Amino acid sequence: MEELRREAGRNLRILPAAITARSLRNGCTYLLDGGGKHIRSTIVVLSCQAVGGKGADAADAAAAVEILHNFTLVHDDIMDNADARRGRRTVHTKWDVNLALLVGDVLVGSAYERLLKGARGHHRELAAVFTQGLIDVCDGQALDLENERRKDVTVAQYFRMIEKKTGALLGMSAELGGIIGGGTPRQQRALRVFGRCLGRAFQLQDDLLDVVADPADFGKTIGGDIIGRKKTFLLLTAVRKAAGGDRRLLESVLRKGNSSRPWRKRTGALTEAGRETVAAVAALYERCGALDDARRLIRRNTDEALRSLSRLPDTVARSMLVQLAEDLTTRVS
Amino acid sequence: MEELRREAGRNLRILPAAITARSLRNGCTYLLDGGGKHIRSTIVVLSCQAVGGKGADAADAAAAVEILHNFTLVHDDIMDNADARRGRRTVHTKWDVNLALLVGDVLVGSAYERLLKGARGHHRELAAVFTQGLIDVCDGQALDLENERRKDVTVAQYFRMIEKKTGALLGMSAELGGIIGGGTPRQQRALRVFGRCLGRAFQLQDDLLDVVADPADFGKTIGGDIIGRKKTFLLLTAVRKAAGGDRRLLESVLRKGNSSRPWRKRTGALTEAGRETVAAVAALYERCGALDDARRLIRRNTDEALRSLSRLPDTVARSMLVQLAEDLTTRVS
Repeated sequence: MEELRREAGRNLRILPAAITARSLRNGCTYLLDGGGKHIRSTIVVLSCQAVGGKGADAADAAAAVEILHNFTLVHDDIMDNADARRGRRTVHTKWDVNLALLVGDVLVGSAYERLLKGARGHHRELAAVFTQGLIDVCDGQALDLENERRKDVTVAQYFRMIEKKTGALLGMSAELGGIIGGGTPRQQRALRVFGRCLGRAFQLQDDLLDVVADPADFGKTIGGDIIGRKKTFLLLTAVRKAAGGDRRLLESVLRKGNSSRPWRKRTGALTEAGRETVAAVAALYERCGALDDARRLIRRNTDEALRSLSRLPDTVARSMLVQLAEDLTTRVS
Repeated sequence: MEELRREAGRNLRILPAAITARSLRNGCTYLLDGGGKHIRSTIVVLSCQAVGGKGADAADAAAAVEILHNFTLVHDDIMDNADARRGRRTVHTKWDVNLALLVGDVLVGSAYERLLKGARGHHRELAAVFTQGLIDVCDGQALDLENERRKDVTVAQYFRMIEKKTGALLGMSAELGGIIGGGTPRQQRALRVFGRCLGRAFQLQDDLLDVVADPADFGKTIGGDIIGRKKTFLLLTAVRKAAGGDRRLLESVLRKGNSSRPWRKRTGALTEAGRETVAAVAALYERCGALDDARRLIRRNTDEALRSLSRLPDTVARSMLVQLAEDLTTRVS
């Protein structure tokens, strides 16, 4: 698995010759060199093998999804005003917003170029699935921005959002691999469902880790979602379940609490008041059962992902997909 | 021709059902409803007909290029900090940068979707040409931003930039039409060359109109490029040719002149000092021959475009392409 991921990282860095502007090449190379888990490209390759294809045939599609994922990151970082990503400065802080915008744009083109390069007669299906993934991921990000501004987001709306924002690209990755590997329509569907369920479990785990991770493993500020009042599964569930004093506590957090005691320092680290708020909300999440609900749903979606995989023949690649799903949804960082 | 353009405008407005976020649909609809000349989609349809295809078969590809063009506009407007476009507020001023960014992103996906929908067995070639156009146009914009920051831009660099920024999408439009219409590789090439030469002439004409247009026709501030110190063909040519007092005048304009007499009011309109600067530089352009050089190159590139067209059979569609080229490169606004 590790070898697959390293290979994916190397394979990513080849840019189209048509990118001649030095600033643009530098920005793209910097972004694509940033590391990451290469989950999506690994899923493409394993899915191809899982339906009997050769992994090497999926190398270009694997690079394409990883490049598309990087496009979403560089544009999301502009939208979120994020200074750092994977321990390095984001493209728009290292250079400027204009370059980051163009880096994202040209990477969409680069992603299609790679996808088509390795399409081996599957141009039509691959391009259709890839395009659907691109539209969905933009729609998911727009839903996320809408949810940020709304006061009355429901858990159902949250799921519709992550379905698109996280699930679409994972489902697409698995499906592309299935197409390239020559899988039957039923197998392709099974792979897509696997990816989409995995996406749900993955995002729920992300929400959960914000509260329960060990600071030594996590690499981010524990409670960042709470302080940022992000409408995570935990918050939406707690809002639905909490009553009395718990409800008042949540409401005060959502109103951003007591501004005379700020939660964050200028460096981004939490203040004493911030840590108290995180601890109080985390205890509330535990008390009202939101953490247990999240754990249950992570397990249920992981199981559904694995059940979908069981429709594929029993191969080493399938076992590796099972392993990858278990690793992702039981991860600690 | 007018009917073709109106048809193109209508055809543009169908958005993928997968765009569910209301904010995103609204932003896309607003942008696509903004009008415009629909030159690119007209070229797709006429090029298809010029090699013997049915215009209706090219309708989706025509919409696709127009959608892609709108993607470049909405992102360019963010980069240029432009408040208005086609007499209306830009998407990022009407809403915000985040929405404008996502509108552009999702329109790339929408453009591919439309392209593939009408591909009729040409998926591979169409997607390849379209992808090349997407990469080129981003590269062209990056080169443009680089040129803005450089002091030593040459006329050759200017042409490399507009080749990509303007020429690529026009060349692509013609080539896509040629592919869909079943043109021979030679005809497809002829159409691409037509579009690319037309793109050069079109951009040179744009540069020229900034100086010589009649304010009553133009709809923009005359001399906007001069005041903005944009590295147009005229400026680069004048810098190369001017000497003595003319050179000193250009240098003072490039240093932004006398800041105690600003050139623009807050409304964007020129001040008295601004109008004086524009008049002085325009006279200089005339004196050193930059205007004549531009006119000569517009004619030469238009002729080259038409020569390339002459390799196609003599049809009504070809005559309309000739007409379109003449209209564009002799236009007054």
